[in-house]
Amino acid sequence: MAGMKLEPVESPYLVPFDGSFRVSKAATKPPKDMRDKDENKKQLKKQIGQLRELQQQLYAHDRMALLLVFQAMDAAGKDGTIRAVMTGVNPAGCQVYSFKAPSSEELDHDFLWRNYRALPERGRIGIFNRSHYEEVLVVRVHPEFLEKQMLPEPIEPEALWPTRYKAIRAAERHWFQSGTAVLKFWLNVSKDEQRRRFLDRIDQPEANWKFSARDVEERKHWDKYMAAYQDALRETSRPWAPWYAVPADDKAYMRRVVADIVVQTLKRMGLKYPSVSAAARAELLARRAELEQD
Amino acid sequence: MAGMKLEPVESPYLVPFDGSFRVSKAATKPPKDMRDKDENKKQLKKQIGQLRELQQQLYAHDRMALLLVFQAMDAAGKDGTIRAVMTGVNPAGCQVYSFKAPSSEELDHDFLWRNYRALPERGRIGIFNRSHYEEVLVVRVHPEFLEKQMLPEPIEPEALWPTRYKAIRAAERHWFQSGTAVLKFWLNVSKDEQRRRFLDRIDQPEANWKFSARDVEERKHWDKYMAAYQDALRETSRPWAPWYAVPADDKAYMRRVVADIVVQTLKRMGLKYPSVSAAARAELLARRAELEQD
Repeated sequence: MAGMKLEPVESPYLVPFDGSFRVSKAATKPPKDMRDKDENKKQLKKQIGQLRELQQQLYAHDRMALLLVFQAMDAAGKDGTIRAVMTGVNPAGCQVYSFKAPSSEELDHDFLWRNYRALPERGRIGIFNRSHYEEVLVVRVHPEFLEKQMLPEPIEPEALWPTRYKAIRAAERHWFQSGTAVLKFWLNVSKDEQRRRFLDRIDQPEANWKFSARDVEERKHWDKYMAAYQDALRETSRPWAPWYAVPADDKAYMRRVVADIVVQTLKRMGLKYPSVSAAARAELLARRAELEQD
Repeated sequence: MAGMKLEPVESPYLVPFDGSFRVSKAATKPPKDMRDKDENKKQLKKQIGQLRELQQQLYAHDRMALLLVFQAMDAAGKDGTIRAVMTGVNPAGCQVYSFKAPSSEELDHDFLWRNYRALPERGRIGIFNRSHYEEVLVVRVHPEFLEKQMLPEPIEPEALWPTRYKAIRAAERHWFQSGTAVLKFWLNVSKDEQRRRFLDRIDQPEANWKFSARDVEERKHWDKYMAAYQDALRETSRPWAPWYAVPADDKAYMRRVVADIVVQTLKRMGLKYPSVSAAARAELLARRAELEQD
């Protein structure tokens, strides 16, 4: 493929590109020997130091961008992971977009339009907290939402999803070819752990504002969501835009895994500080002489 | 004034609201007893910890926003100050816009249009690295740039600036009344210190990419720039959108001063975590019972 060369980072959580991914086989907990919270936090801290440095190189190099997509069930830890992994990066080189229910203006456009507008500029890290994947997740679970999109002809929802996957694959491939590396994280929380976290949010009055009764409603569609995730990940995990299905029941481990994949990816992008041509260097030296006499 | 109540933070660098500001009296160096680099760094670190906490409150409270405007001569340290003060804040709650020379699309609109579009959303900190003030700084120093704006009638530049100041004052007052606190920082570097920094950038080949010969050209207009800054700060430092003229020859001190003013301002904004109504709380408890049986 033309454009950027970038091999996906190997990981036990890399979703294969051959459509064989199964949600029922995807871990929600870390391996037994990776549950030491202090060690996971220590490793995360190391990664954050590297990330800060790599982001500066990405910015200076100014030929590529990195897009991180986060999708998950409620309470899996999207917000916390973005905060934990990206706090420490210069906000001038990092743009976070949180996609909510689409506005009327957004619904007047195709489903990729609002995401396209939010892509990171060259040299930046862009983060999508939810994304264009909502179309094949929440909209798939609630196909009645399609009515608001006023599609050009009556659409049989089940015939629609394959065209959506195809559109997403084509868009992401184009972004990649144009210099934007795309990494997608599904934070895979178990139904039990979600229940525990919901109960915690209810029991801590100061956390109540983060919680809405609707979250409990959505939980009733758990199996439909899992089926939608499985299809979406199978159909759109590709070498140019891999999905990682990261166990989310242990926050410290999850954050460490995400940070590691981001750092390893940036290391593979061949970033370097731009060099200055001989002519430009000569011009600078002429200016130097001028300044000396200033 | 209707809307937000917020007294500007007192500081020796607060630009008075009565038009008496004089660039020639504005310090470019810290007071003698404030030059301990380690101490300034230690204080900055403390402020950053508070800033992180306050940003979370701003986000949760979700009724106000904070806009930080940075203007300065080249090499005064805008980028470095934004990085040093804001790294550590969750990028999800912080948006940095770096305004460059306007695009053709931007020139097809009034001079405030592109800045207006980049205002922070409620609950966020927005940062303008350069801003709408370029109109009364670089455009004032180079009035030939006005031709590209295709203003509706031939304009005598010197008659234009008072209307620009008035438009800026009105816009900022409206932003403030709508819930966005506006803080403006002029990083005040001396001409001598700029020269030293330019020479350093030339002498360190790895820093050459940050430097362009044009920066030395602009330096020749130093006095015109100082006159433009003086007028702009006099005309637009107001209680609802104060300017701070911060000494910039000592980076550690400058960063500490900026962080302190940002933190003190956020503390005055009366931020609090939203509380949940009794009805909503009852609803949550009903959901709790449901989850218990799940």
